[in-house]
Amino acid sequence: MKRPLILVCNDDGYKAPGIRALTRVAERYGDVVVVAPVSGQSGMSHAVTLNHPIRLRTVSVNGEVPTYACTGTPADCIKIALNQVLDRKPDLVLSGINHGSNASVSLFYSGTVAAAIEACMNGIPAAAFSVDDHSHETDLSLATRYAGGIIENLLDKGLPKGVCLNINFPRIPPDECKGLKVCRQTIGVWKEEFEKRTDPQGREYFWLTGEFSNEEPDERDTDEWALANGYGAVVPISIEVTHYPSLEQMADWRFDTHHE
Amino acid sequence: MKRPLILVCNDDGYKAPGIRALTRVAERYGDVVVVAPVSGQSGMSHAVTLNHPIRLRTVSVNGEVPTYACTGTPADCIKIALNQVLDRKPDLVLSGINHGSNASVSLFYSGTVAAAIEACMNGIPAAAFSVDDHSHETDLSLATRYAGGIIENLLDKGLPKGVCLNINFPRIPPDECKGLKVCRQTIGVWKEEFEKRTDPQGREYFWLTGEFSNEEPDERDTDEWALANGYGAVVPISIEVTHYPSLEQMADWRFDTHHE
Repeated sequence: MKRPLILVCNDDGYKAPGIRALTRVAERYGDVVVVAPVSGQSGMSHAVTLNHPIRLRTVSVNGEVPTYACTGTPADCIKIALNQVLDRKPDLVLSGINHGSNASVSLFYSGTVAAAIEACMNGIPAAAFSVDDHSHETDLSLATRYAGGIIENLLDKGLPKGVCLNINFPRIPPDECKGLKVCRQTIGVWKEEFEKRTDPQGREYFWLTGEFSNEEPDERDTDEWALANGYGAVVPISIEVTHYPSLEQMADWRFDTHHE
Repeated sequence: MKRPLILVCNDDGYKAPGIRALTRVAERYGDVVVVAPVSGQSGMSHAVTLNHPIRLRTVSVNGEVPTYACTGTPADCIKIALNQVLDRKPDLVLSGINHGSNASVSLFYSGTVAAAIEACMNGIPAAAFSVDDHSHETDLSLATRYAGGIIENLLDKGLPKGVCLNINFPRIPPDECKGLKVCRQTIGVWKEEFEKRTDPQGREYFWLTGEFSNEEPDERDTDEWALANGYGAVVPISIEVTHYPSLEQMADWRFDTHHE
């Protein structure tokens, strides 16, 4: 029987410790190909490269695992992997392990999650992995301990069409982790505080900073609660984002009241 | 009574005909402030600028309407508008009119839609407007004809928390339009075909191209069907993307089978 084909991507770039750790786990379950950005693409969300060309080169960082560095975004990496690199559709796409949490609404900004969503759009079971620590020196053993079980489930049971997984791990010693919790996306918002500075020419500029604000810190079925309470958080997310209740609520909207 | 405060943004840049047309409509309903990218940000999705500073300057393109050009992405524009430009929370955020359709899954790649989502995250009613024509010379009168009615409904009725609107208009003469349809996001996928070229130094590079493939062309409740059949399409989209049925379906997943 053919071994599963597993495509691995991330948004921190092909050299990041997170993707190398995830690649080593994936190797236990199938034939792995890595297609990842040349350099960091954090905060790039689902951006695609339309206005300049994309380059792709092979690099040697993962032993025998074919690894391609792509000048594009994480979404570009998935697209070019499916279209130019792989000779068949992969059985699984794994993205990460991201250095930094992508829980709650952070998933919207995440290139790591976007890579999983892009795979999901193409009908491939996919999961994004992140640890709640931006440091590239962070301990990844908690995430790698559970990644194997997740890969087994994904290969064995798959996911419904249009659904992928956003998985986050807390920054705690592996032995303190109570396990994984399947949960929902926390409702919250990033409270921005731009830092205004003045350049040597006397002109203003701004740095985007901010702090996540959890709007439902006591809800035990949310991913932020899981992370704050010693669990890894597994959120199944949908790429079909229609808000169905509104379809009916908007039935009384009249659009043509003020024709010009 | 205070006039509503309306923030206008887009992803084609502050000079694009689409945002100028939308600004003129918005002026009829409130005090308008425009904060938009300096230049085109198509395909930038919900990207935010983390690795370099953002600049903001006032520009004069919209008569009396205060207009700011921002070097960041559409999501950055909303963030900096709320945090640095406006002295109170706007009553409404409008994004567009985008030159190019953002129906179906295209909304994931869209900076125009991301601006509306960013506003929605901050609890502000928001709508993204797009026309199915990339040309900056396209006739915007169909979109502007209906934009007023949409703004009225948004100011009057608002939207549920966590919901914003993705509105697309077909490329047809305004008189042929049958009206607006409230509908759901079409299930579909972009079929990529990278165009491989060789540069003067003999090195390969790729251009991302592609074609949208509608996986349910006969479903009359979808936005693509509406556009193909002479309607403008109004899709309420949710920023809460948990796939609830999967929460139960995944109850039998075991994650700890292969501890290292």
